[in-house]
Amino acid sequence: MKVLVTGFEPFNGETINPSFEAIKMLPDEVEGAKIIKAKLPTVFRKSLCELEELISKENPDIVICVGQAAGRSKISIERVAINIDDAEINDNEGNKPKDEKIFVDGENAYFSNLPIKLMVKTIKEHNIPAEISNSAGTYVCNHVFYGLMYLIDKKFKNLKGGFIHVPFSHNQVLEKKNVPSMSLEDITNGLFYAIKGVLSEK
Amino acid sequence: MKVLVTGFEPFNGETINPSFEAIKMLPDEVEGAKIIKAKLPTVFRKSLCELEELISKENPDIVICVGQAAGRSKISIERVAINIDDAEINDNEGNKPKDEKIFVDGENAYFSNLPIKLMVKTIKEHNIPAEISNSAGTYVCNHVFYGLMYLIDKKFKNLKGGFIHVPFSHNQVLEKKNVPSMSLEDITNGLFYAIKGVLSEK
Amino acid sequence: MKVLVTGFEPFNGETINPSFEAIKMLPDEVEGAKIIKAKLPTVFRKSLCELEELISKENPDIVICVGQAAGRSKISIERVAINIDDAEINDNEGNKPKDEKIFVDGENAYFSNLPIKLMVKTIKEHNIPAEISNSAGTYVCNHVFYGLMYLIDKKFKNLKGGFIHVPFSHNQVLEKKNVPSMSLEDITNGLFYAIKGVLSEK
Amino acid sequence: MKVLVTGFEPFNGETINPSFEAIKMLPDEVEGAKIIKAKLPTVFRKSLCELEELISKENPDIVICVGQAAGRSKISIERVAINIDDAEINDNEGNKPKDEKIFVDGENAYFSNLPIKLMVKTIKEHNIPAEISNSAGTYVCNHVFYGLMYLIDKKFKNLKGGFIHVPFSHNQVLEKKNVPSMSLEDITNGLFYAIKGVLSEK
Repeated sequence: MKVLVTGFEPFNGETINPSFEAIKMLPDEVEGAKIIKAKLPTVFRKSLCELEELISKENPDIVICVGQAAGRSKISIERVAINIDDAEINDNEGNKPKDEKIFVDGENAYFSNLPIKLMVKTIKEHNIPAEISNSAGTYVCNHVFYGLMYLIDKKFKNLKGGFIHVPFSHNQVLEKKNVPSMSLEDITNGLFYAIKGVLSEK
Repeated sequence: MKVLVTGFEPFNGETINPSFEAIKMLPDEVEGAKIIKAKLPTVFRKSLCELEELISKENPDIVICVGQAAGRSKISIERVAINIDDAEINDNEGNKPKDEKIFVDGENAYFSNLPIKLMVKTIKEHNIPAEISNSAGTYVCNHVFYGLMYLIDKKFKNLKGGFIHVPFSHNQVLEKKNVPSMSLEDITNGLFYAIKGVLSEK
Repeated sequence: MKVLVTGFEPFNGETINPSFEAIKMLPDEVEGAKIIKAKLPTVFRKSLCELEELISKENPDIVICVGQAAGRSKISIERVAINIDDAEINDNEGNKPKDEKIFVDGENAYFSNLPIKLMVKTIKEHNIPAEISNSAGTYVCNHVFYGLMYLIDKKFKNLKGGFIHVPFSHNQVLEKKNVPSMSLEDITNGLFYAIKGVLSEK
Repeated sequence: MKVLVTGFEPFNGETINPSFEAIKMLPDEVEGAKIIKAKLPTVFRKSLCELEELISKENPDIVICVGQAAGRSKISIERVAINIDDAEINDNEGNKPKDEKIFVDGENAYFSNLPIKLMVKTIKEHNIPAEISNSAGTYVCNHVFYGLMYLIDKKFKNLKGGFIHVPFSHNQVLEKKNVPSMSLEDITNGLFYAIKGVLSEK
């Protein structure tokens, strides 16, 4: 069993991205499954090309992409990705698509095929706040989540995939007012138990 | 050097109070100073009687009272206590004072005489979100903070004292929506570095 | 030209639903288009049956369903409805579906076919806060929005339809803490300019 | 009977200040009392000099100062002003005092001597959200509130005075995310009923 876990580069003026900082701290093996870690660029299209290459190369059983969700206070297991790019800020290469379909031959939306409720339950059993989220936004996170599920639908039919949003890490909010955050340890543990939840289903 | 640190009993339907859970985890000595830990009842007047007894018995150099602040996301070092009790919910013995002075011969307000900015700085240097707060409310937390500073003003002139509000701990918000929280480890570390900040001034 | 606008019954302990209070205050004609107003039950399935009957009977050109979104501070024009019922509270007849598809032969999601960006722009030009929302939740609001778009997809091909979430009205939050609200006048005006935005496209 | 009501200049990059926009819309007479309206500079010290001149010139019975509170969703009747200036941003003339007493011979804090609970009640009876606030911050608003109460304590002993914070007006948040606001009409009505509440006590 092999699990590919991806994080993102920092964006929007941040110097770190807690999604990648946290996945780096995950063990290389969980319950006998090998954990492969990778960083994706915070760039429309390019992120998806790299994700597809990684899947082709690593041939994982499960893919979990992780991104930063400014302002949320809990680990969010995303339920659904929608077929739209609608950016309010530039990505890391200056792209800012508005109201564009991600794949013209894709479904309007794809649901995660991971056991999202079980993931939330497993994380919460270890005293880390977690919840289901019904929107991954319309920026690069949703783009990658949608692209992953599109790839599963069209090409990698046996693959399981989903997306997790994590809060800012503490060091990102030290100078911000009233913005929730979580320690990198908690975020890492949240992701660890999310993976355990996924593996316990199989 | 001796530091008295107090937490509170749970109240308002909660089964734990993170202020007391966290102080229990503090070491018994910080930078050579002895740390004395105590739990105060979440009850108007009675809390202050017990605090005064503790101060008389232990003769500390520094008193730091700690309480729970529902909905805050950072460790809050309180700046000022005001001479008013104005409860919106019952305390743990059914008292609910409205617009009453705490001590008729007390000042309108007392400022903490701890180095509050240095405490915030020391906590943040260790990547735990912290801030100055300008209101400890008008419930039992402000009551105890005000009473402490009144006791310092009237009776224990050499004592240093102040108040810290901590967020909900993670386990308190697992079934709550959109309420920030912090792990007990982070809260405990926040309090530890707050104490270090106080001691570094002396 | 005929526009059907629906609001909902109160639910979850509220005594009013601002969606219906506001649509009652809309004029009977906007820019020459006739405005038909109706109240839907806050009940899974039954709400959709009544909506379908209304459409069959009134034969409108445009349908705009409106619902209450607790905690939001702006008029939200919804972008997308997803094929899932997942209730956290009972509806008004005690139903609480968990993770059920709304229509097994429906798309995973449907996008509103109203000019959502133009609606936001028109509302904001009249100084009322408005925004695009990417999730109508998984309760009765999303259920009705999804059902409406399903009906358009399968049966009423020339119909235009969409969903608007409105904040609590002021009178609903007088005894609540830290919950944003809007006056019924502002909500009504927001809906009026949303309709104007839709009509200006045609 | 004469009531002096003051608002502030815009600050911190805003082009309007809802406190002054709203008081301009107040009637010139409420319940037989004359309403005098004035704008104060958002500048430490200078604001207080102008306030003292206004009081000397107009000889009001009641002074209500009004300011903008970014992020609040209700009209806030302030309870208490504290003897400290501690600015996080420059005022409109570049001053940024840190941890300075406002008046060295003043009390640590002054309580409003207006009937604050009655003001909240009267505003809410007209369906406008209102609440008591226990902190006016440590910027120019608290400075003016403290200075007013100091002047009452030291010089204008028969004067009644207090402070009201108002939310952003709708037009200030059109391009901001997740920031509550209120229409200028609602803010003006809130202030009107606050004044009515004060006058009904006499």
